[in-house]
Amino acid sequence: MKQAGSRTRAVNPVNPAAAADAGIQHAALIALDWGTTSLRAYLYDAAGEVLATRASTAGIMNLPSSDVEQGGFDAAFDDACGAWLKQAPAVPVIAAGMVGSAQGWVDAPYVEAPANANALVAGIVRVKAACGATLHIVPGVLQRGDLPNVMRGEETQIFGALGQETGAVEGGKRALIGLPGTHAKWAVVQAGRIERFHTFMTGEVFAALREHTILGRTMVTPDRPDTDAFLRGVKIARDKGQAGMLATVFSARTLGLTGQLSREQQPDYLSGLLIGHELGGLEALLTQQQNSLAGQHLRLIGNEALCERYRVALAQFGCTHAELVKHATERGLWRVATQAGLVNPAPQAVHAG
Amino acid sequence: MKQAGSRTRAVNPVNPAAAADAGIQHAALIALDWGTTSLRAYLYDAAGEVLATRASTAGIMNLPSSDVEQGGFDAAFDDACGAWLKQAPAVPVIAAGMVGSAQGWVDAPYVEAPANANALVAGIVRVKAACGATLHIVPGVLQRGDLPNVMRGEETQIFGALGQETGAVEGGKRALIGLPGTHAKWAVVQAGRIERFHTFMTGEVFAALREHTILGRTMVTPDRPDTDAFLRGVKIARDKGQAGMLATVFSARTLGLTGQLSREQQPDYLSGLLIGHELGGLEALLTQQQNSLAGQHLRLIGNEALCERYRVALAQFGCTHAELVKHATERGLWRVATQAGLVNPAPQAVHAG
Repeated sequence: MKQAGSRTRAVNPVNPAAAADAGIQHAALIALDWGTTSLRAYLYDAAGEVLATRASTAGIMNLPSSDVEQGGFDAAFDDACGAWLKQAPAVPVIAAGMVGSAQGWVDAPYVEAPANANALVAGIVRVKAACGATLHIVPGVLQRGDLPNVMRGEETQIFGALGQETGAVEGGKRALIGLPGTHAKWAVVQAGRIERFHTFMTGEVFAALREHTILGRTMVTPDRPDTDAFLRGVKIARDKGQAGMLATVFSARTLGLTGQLSREQQPDYLSGLLIGHELGGLEALLTQQQNSLAGQHLRLIGNEALCERYRVALAQFGCTHAELVKHATERGLWRVATQAGLVNPAPQAVHAG
Repeated sequence: MKQAGSRTRAVNPVNPAAAADAGIQHAALIALDWGTTSLRAYLYDAAGEVLATRASTAGIMNLPSSDVEQGGFDAAFDDACGAWLKQAPAVPVIAAGMVGSAQGWVDAPYVEAPANANALVAGIVRVKAACGATLHIVPGVLQRGDLPNVMRGEETQIFGALGQETGAVEGGKRALIGLPGTHAKWAVVQAGRIERFHTFMTGEVFAALREHTILGRTMVTPDRPDTDAFLRGVKIARDKGQAGMLATVFSARTLGLTGQLSREQQPDYLSGLLIGHELGGLEALLTQQQNSLAGQHLRLIGNEALCERYRVALAQFGCTHAELVKHATERGLWRVATQAGLVNPAPQAVHAG
C-alpha cells in the first residue's frame, strides 16, 4: 500500500470530479473517517493506494442540514463522495468513527475488548444512503470494569498501525500504542488483539483549563512552542506531581505571579504538566502489570506536532523508542474493508510487511 | 464575640440606614470580605459582636462603574458602607481578599509563609477612599517553591478559626485546616502560624468540566444531591485513581454509556471523583510528612453544604473528626483588626476560648 503524499493530495473542492478523474476507473473502495467535528474521505484503487482524499468539517455534530431527518448525514456524504459514486456507483463504502455512535447515522454497538479485526468485521452495521450506496459502519470497542472505556475510530487506526508488521514476527509480542488528542488513548495490543486500553481526557481538559479557568487569563499564546517551558511542566508532574493534577495546575498561575514563568511560557508549561500527569498515570498502570515506560518500544498515532510533544515527554520517563506511525487511519480502514471482504486486494497489497 | 445569626441579619438594601440605626452608636469596626465576585461588609460593636451585615455582588471583577479610574471601588464601598460611615465617620475600616491583589484597589504585597497574625498586621496597606475613610487592606500569604502557593482572604479566615482556641492548650499542636471552594486550600497551622499550604483547583475544574467538556453533555442536575453517586466517585478516586484524574473523569461518561450511572447521578459522581482526587493528593502530601488523614482532627471553613460533602468524603479516608468552623471570616477580620490596634476590644471579647 503506497501512501506517500496521500494526505496532501486533497481534491479541489470546487471541482472534485475533475481531480479524481485520473484514477476513478480504478476505484476499489471509498472509506470514511467520520468523527465528531470532521469528515475525511479516501478513494483507493485495488492495490490499496489512495487515489484521492476529501476533507470537510461535516463531523456528526456539525452536519450541513441537521433539521431534515437523517438528511444531514446524506448531504454530508453526498458532498464528500457524490462525485466519486456518480462515476463508480458500485464501489463499496466503509466508515469508522463517531458516525457509528448513538448520535451518528446508525448505532453500531461496541464490540468488547479483547477485540481483534475479525470482531470488528463481525460488528459492522450497514446503512443505506439516499443515493443508493450502502455504508459499512465499523463498530467501536468497549472495555468493561469500574472505569469502563470506549473508543470509536481509534480501533481502526490501531489495526492500521498493526498492519505494517509481519504477523509471524511481531504478532505475539505485547505492544503499547498511544493516540494523543482530545481524549488520548493508550492501548495494549497482543496477538493482533486490542487487549485493554485507557482514556486520558488530556486534550479536552487542557482546552477547558486554558479557555474557561483563571489559568488562561494570564496566558499569551507564544509565536512558537516553548520546549523548555513544556519540559519544565513534564518534570514537575513527574517529580512533584504526587498531589495530583488538581494541585499542580495552580502553579501555572503562581509561577507567573512570582515572576518565574512568563505569560508566553504558561500555555506550554500547562501542556507539559498535563501530558506529564498523563504519562505518570500510564506509568502507574503499567507498574501494576509489572511493566514500565522505561525501555518500551511504543508507537504513536496522530497529529505529528502533538506526537512529537509526546516523544519529548516520554523521554523524560525513560522511553526513547516512540515511533510515529503515519497514515494509520487510511491503512486501518483498508485493512478492515479487506478483512470484511469488501475488496479483494491486488497481490502487491498483501499486508505482510 | 457573639455571632449567632449575624449572617442572616442582612440589612435591607432599600433602607440600610434604618436597620443599622439600632446599633450604629456602638459601632467600633467596619470589616470587608472583598473577593473576586462578591463583597460582604460587617459592622461590629466594641465587643466584637456583628451589628449588621451587607452583601453585594460587587467583587473586584464585578464593580459597578469600572470605567472611572478607581471609581468602581469607591462606588462599591459607598454602596456597602456609606450609610454606616455617614453616621459613624470615625469607625476604622479593614478589608481582606482580592481587594488587595494587583487587580484590586491597592496592591498589598504577599507576606511569606510561615506567617502569623503579626506578619499580616505588618503587611497591611492603607488606601484612602473618596469619602475620606481609610481602608486597611490585609495582605495575602505566599509560599515559595517549585509549586508556589498564594492565598488572599483565606489567611484571615484561618486566623478566625484559630481565634476560637486557647493559645496555651492548642497553640503548639499542628492543625490541619481545609477551605473547600473554587480554589480549595489546605493549610498546616502550628503555634499560631500558617506553616505551609496547598491549593487544589477542585471547584473551578469541576465547573470547567461540567460546563465546557463532553462530560457535561450527558449530565442532568438532580433535584437534590445524590450522596450515593458522590460516594461512588470518592471511592473510585481513592481505590482506582492511580492513573490520575485525567483518566478517571472519563468514567462519568462511560458509566453512563454502559447504563451504570444515570444522567442525574453524573454530576455528583464527578464531584465525588474530584474531591476524592483532592483528598488522595492531600493524603500523599501528608504521607511525605509522616502524617495521614486517618485519625486527623481537622477543621473546615466555608459553605456549609460543601463542607458537609467534604466531611462525607474525608470519612472515606479514615478522617471522622472534621469540625465545621462557622463565622471564620468575621472572626478573622475582627482578630486582625484587634491585633493591628484598630479596635480596643471590650473585656468580654478577649479571645481566650
